[in-house]
Amino acid sequence: MSPYELKTGVRRSSYFLPTLRETPADATLVSHRLMLRGGLIRQASAGLYNWLPLGFRVLKKIERIVRQEQDRIGAHECLMPTIQSADLWRQSGRYEDYGKEMLRITDRHDRALLYGPTNEEAITSIFAETIKTYKELPQLLYHIQWKFRDEVRPRFGVMRAREFYMKDAYSFDCDKQGGIDSYNSMFISYLRTFQRLGVQAIPMRADTGPIGGESSHEFVIIAETGESTIYLDSSLLDMRWALAAQDDRKKYREMVSRATSLYAATSDEHTPLQFDKQVPRSRQIKTHGIEVGHVFFFGDKYSKPLDAKIKAASGEEVFVQMGSYGIGISRLVAAIIESSHDDRGIVWPKSVAPFKVGLICLDTGKYKVSEELYALLCNNGFETLYDDRFDVRAGVKFAEMDLLGLPIQLIVGGKSATSGSIEFKERKSDERHFVPLEQVIPFIRKQSTADSVTIFD
Amino acid sequence: MSPYELKTGVRRSSYFLPTLRETPADATLVSHRLMLRGGLIRQASAGLYNWLPLGFRVLKKIERIVRQEQDRIGAHECLMPTIQSADLWRQSGRYEDYGKEMLRITDRHDRALLYGPTNEEAITSIFAETIKTYKELPQLLYHIQWKFRDEVRPRFGVMRAREFYMKDAYSFDCDKQGGIDSYNSMFISYLRTFQRLGVQAIPMRADTGPIGGESSHEFVIIAETGESTIYLDSSLLDMRWALAAQDDRKKYREMVSRATSLYAATSDEHTPLQFDKQVPRSRQIKTHGIEVGHVFFFGDKYSKPLDAKIKAASGEEVFVQMGSYGIGISRLVAAIIESSHDDRGIVWPKSVAPFKVGLICLDTGKYKVSEELYALLCNNGFETLYDDRFDVRAGVKFAEMDLLGLPIQLIVGGKSATSGSIEFKERKSDERHFVPLEQVIPFIRKQSTADSVTIFD
Repeated sequence: MSPYELKTGVRRSSYFLPTLRETPADATLVSHRLMLRGGLIRQASAGLYNWLPLGFRVLKKIERIVRQEQDRIGAHECLMPTIQSADLWRQSGRYEDYGKEMLRITDRHDRALLYGPTNEEAITSIFAETIKTYKELPQLLYHIQWKFRDEVRPRFGVMRAREFYMKDAYSFDCDKQGGIDSYNSMFISYLRTFQRLGVQAIPMRADTGPIGGESSHEFVIIAETGESTIYLDSSLLDMRWALAAQDDRKKYREMVSRATSLYAATSDEHTPLQFDKQVPRSRQIKTHGIEVGHVFFFGDKYSKPLDAKIKAASGEEVFVQMGSYGIGISRLVAAIIESSHDDRGIVWPKSVAPFKVGLICLDTGKYKVSEELYALLCNNGFETLYDDRFDVRAGVKFAEMDLLGLPIQLIVGGKSATSGSIEFKERKSDERHFVPLEQVIPFIRKQSTADSVTIFD
Repeated sequence: MSPYELKTGVRRSSYFLPTLRETPADATLVSHRLMLRGGLIRQASAGLYNWLPLGFRVLKKIERIVRQEQDRIGAHECLMPTIQSADLWRQSGRYEDYGKEMLRITDRHDRALLYGPTNEEAITSIFAETIKTYKELPQLLYHIQWKFRDEVRPRFGVMRAREFYMKDAYSFDCDKQGGIDSYNSMFISYLRTFQRLGVQAIPMRADTGPIGGESSHEFVIIAETGESTIYLDSSLLDMRWALAAQDDRKKYREMVSRATSLYAATSDEHTPLQFDKQVPRSRQIKTHGIEVGHVFFFGDKYSKPLDAKIKAASGEEVFVQMGSYGIGISRLVAAIIESSHDDRGIVWPKSVAPFKVGLICLDTGKYKVSEELYALLCNNGFETLYDDRFDVRAGVKFAEMDLLGLPIQLIVGGKSATSGSIEFKERKSDERHFVPLEQVIPFIRKQSTADSVTIFD
């Protein structure tokens, strides 16, 4: 078992991996095409997707990194049901507001239910019946659960699916300054999360939309194929985020202020004059992006109608100050592909690749060597997809492995056969080395160590 | 991080753990009462539950063991959406059959959807569009997902909730013998799974119910408080299951035949005469149980209407032979409590306990020692709930720790203070030892090694 609780090695011959050689006609977005071709997903019906084993692994790896970074800042994981009663939404006033995007359901006793599109009401209600005093604050609670938004025209695969997987967190504080400090710590945690996922996600001032509230930022992944045009200061791309202690609120304030002081705007909020004034020409970037996270501070917007009061240190009863914080996990699978692919297929960042190594055996004569190497890789904890098929041509195997985008390919037989060594290929750079069998593990390990230089310094 | 991807240690003072001193009036089942009192769950609305952080940890631990045992027999994990189109269910003929337990939904375009109560149709459809030849068989696919059954009277907490978490697996084989072999390997895997979860689950011949098919067994956990009365041969309780190689079909057949040859029946299927004839008086047990797993072999019941055909080795096209296999993960949390508690609270089996150690500090004077011990425990990977509160009486802390049922309690201060050592208490046996601080980690480790004697020999 790998640390991801996923199988370390699988054999291609018995794996459930239906790749496609043809590009599906109805998929316009590159991530949608690659996910279908690579056997990561299959559509179940409009806006609903089956995650096949390879896609499921990526989903779980993203989930794990998101979870670890939530835990790091002291958030506690819980889990709320997907189906909610309409009552709380009537109380908050959002039942009618949400419109047709909300999937409304009537049960056998004619009670009004809905498939949760978000959970502000549900978590506020749990909080209200549980926490009564400032002594038990601050609290940060999160869950990772399926949500549903009944999009008029679901499209772009899992990028804009109706049922989607999301992490949503909620902060509870005694007063506004405490609430803003929680917002800041989540803000910084998001920067770390996206860095670990191997993508550039830029925080941008945003509209508060249906969640509402006083303050809000979107986190946008840069991808040429993204839906929205964005304008930003290139210094944002070079920023690295120090891992501050959990309660170093002052440092967090400084970091957020630094991150939000640089120019970054979607086309809606873009002002050319301001851009030119604030950013030197050489640092001006115009590109495209995909929203993958969103943070809100909304004070007592939900605590008031849902009567979530606490006793403050002063003795008086006050409404708890809240924020909410989302990351679209299933959408990230597509967004990462949008930001990292080439004309041969996906190029997974190492932290989320479904397997680290793709092992290809080309000759039946080299069967024993490749079996030995496969065992070695698994025993050393390197997640490996082993293409052990002999009824498939070498060219087809190479093309498929490039399509799947695993960081490292190891090729046994073929060109390497004469030299008695294994061909090592890095998918991203296409760099190749010939390495003797007994050197393969140390070679991969050395490369991995070079990669894992911490990004939080 | 522990291997479970859950935080290794948490402080009681900042944890979201709303325990109750009073027994909730409307909860009749002991597991329901203990889960509410222990702060594991809160009701969201009828038959819908919020999993609070402590309960969530147990859910995840059960899920992990179930996953590992599915992976061990070569099953591949995927994930299907919770919402399904009604079309496939019309094709299989079950759309009308399922009655009011199925939650039917209409989307904004007036298309008929439903919240999946099970996934035979969905997985058969994925299979049908993917696998075309016997060369790619056998296949075992599973997923772990939320399901919904609109019970008339949801009750007993998560034991009979409307939204529930379940592992369901599906096997695909060329012919009937292959199908039965897949059934057998899943059957044995279930025995192992339940043993690892620390419960006795007895396989019993069962009705095939709404899933249908030719062959079916229920797995029933013995619990005095269970819904059904069961009769069995006590030899079943002493059986241990060897970990056979994945493809040792002959051995699996023998094991299943051995496990099913002994008498075990629910009251519906119980025949006193047969019981007396087959089982010596000294081995006759009458007790109660809770169904936690169910396996079915149903041949072409779904592959025929959904047209899931493959090319057999003979060249002819045949319908694929299928089975399905469920384990109720959220229900297991309650079932394990039913089978393992005492009058003070829950007694978690070690494999699923939310934390291994409950650390209690009694004196402010011992604060430094307990902080040191907490750091030691976390650094050594022992999951610890640290009761670091000083505004709560010792008696309340002891009662709460017993209620929560963590396997080991460590008490700093109080009686142990004078001797300069730490009090070690095993929750289940109430056995106590006084151990010097520097000996605590080796002491726990020694105890854990003694426990971990493999049960698969």
